Amino acid sequence: MVTNDELVHEKVLKAVMDYLQSISFNKTPPEISMHVHQIIKEVTKCDDPYQKAKGKNNALAKRLYPWAKSIINKADDKLLAAIKIAIAGNVIDFGASMRFDVEKTMMDALKTRFAINDYEKFKLALKKAEKILYLGDNAGEVVFDKLLLNQLANAGKEIVYAVKERPIINDATMEDAIVAEIDKMVKVIAVKGNAPGVILRLCPREFMDYYDSANMVIAKGQGNYESLSDEPIFFLLIVKCELVARDLGVKVGDIVLKRG
Amino acid sequence: MVTNDELVHEKVLKAVMDYLQSISFNKTPPEISMHVHQIIKEVTKCDDPYQKAKGKNNALAKRLYPWAKSIINKADDKLLAAIKIAIAGNVIDFGASMRFDVEKTMMDALKTRFAINDYEKFKLALKKAEKILYLGDNAGEVVFDKLLLNQLANAGKEIVYAVKERPIINDATMEDAIVAEIDKMVKVIAVKGNAPGVILRLCPREFMDYYDSANMVIAKGQGNYESLSDEPIFFLLIVKCELVARDLGVKVGDIVLKRG
Repeated sequence: MVTNDELVHEKVLKAVMDYLQSISFNKTPPEISMHVHQIIKEVTKCDDPYQKAKGKNNALAKRLYPWAKSIINKADDKLLAAIKIAIAGNVIDFGASMRFDVEKTMMDALKTRFAINDYEKFKLALKKAEKILYLGDNAGEVVFDKLLLNQLANAGKEIVYAVKERPIINDATMEDAIVAEIDKMVKVIAVKGNAPGVILRLCPREFMDYYDSANMVIAKGQGNYESLSDEPIFFLLIVKCELVARDLGVKVGDIVLKRG
Repeated sequence: MVTNDELVHEKVLKAVMDYLQSISFNKTPPEISMHVHQIIKEVTKCDDPYQKAKGKNNALAKRLYPWAKSIINKADDKLLAAIKIAIAGNVIDFGASMRFDVEKTMMDALKTRFAINDYEKFKLALKKAEKILYLGDNAGEVVFDKLLLNQLANAGKEIVYAVKERPIINDATMEDAIVAEIDKMVKVIAVKGNAPGVILRLCPREFMDYYDSANMVIAKGQGNYESLSDEPIFFLLIVKCELVARDLGVKVGDIVLKRG
């Protein structure tokens, strides 16, 4: 996305291979990815290779938003529908950037059961919770998170929505939260660093205060699952790769609502 | 295929990355692949990871052989049909190990035009040739090469068929040629070394004598195209990856009869 110069591609590949040789393969994917993308940024001298893609995905999601909202309004169980729409919004990335793909994924999700279904636990936790921390995932997807945030806010909860501080792959940053107008609904904070997930041991006290004081944490997407899978929090994701599918005991394409 | 031990996988990956960092990306894929598979063999202590797969593919091809032979016998242009069957036989590898896939690819190939069509040049060269060198490609596929070798032998040509000396990926070795009973039809020689292609500057005089004295050289598959694309010889292949497709100006899945 940054350059067609094959010498630059070669430089990137060799620098990444040099890094990958030196590390433990027990690191989580987001932690490895953080360093790999740092290398890409340094070699290409581009701090945000996915900027265009993110803008496109935000625009697509905003066009689909009224349609998705009307579907939830018509649903018998609006919370469940909002969860499924928010999960399906996760397919807005580079493989599925067409309106049709996103609409279809959402309609399919509404008809499909969770491969792992902790919805009862989710409702119970929600009932008891006062403070909720919601860990966002990708640009574009954030727009659909609003529909779930609405359901949570209607239940009278105090919600904090977390995005990434620095650009990393297509993860949502403060800019995307503002484009989606999430900042007008709830408090938005930025997770320090530039991992495509949340690496707790790298998070400063400020973020940990939000994390620890929340009665309920909702984590969207694979990146957050990969970095936080051992935590007792709620994961909302559509399974995008064999490795995560194997770890969860489900199939690629499945939708999951799992309490860790 | 050799082990489920993830520590061995990690060792292989890191050793391969170490090698790839040190090389020029201008090397041909077969030359890079030769070293990569040497590393795999050394780390896994297995000299022939694809042995089982090759045996399976030989067996599948032998079951399909009578059917393929009858199709050629019924064809108006038997030489053309034999060329197409021999090219389509190249799909016998790990993605397409079911009988159905191979049959379908062959029927499709018979109905499809070459994306690059040097059939007239092929016939002219064949007419003039006395000695033909035929560079084989994969196990299994070698069985279907017999049908084309038959056509060439019927035209009264002196044919030498080349396989690989040492196991490399699923490339045919002398063992596979014997299983296919090619040795009963024509002279079979082994290309020294263990590249999945023919790297002329690494070939000994003995092989080069066959290569240089042949009036016509027929090279099957992508590996031979990747290593010999600058040579004035005939390439018969089905295009399996974007890189080769781009180089040839055709699409993945296309069948090609090209004089280099």
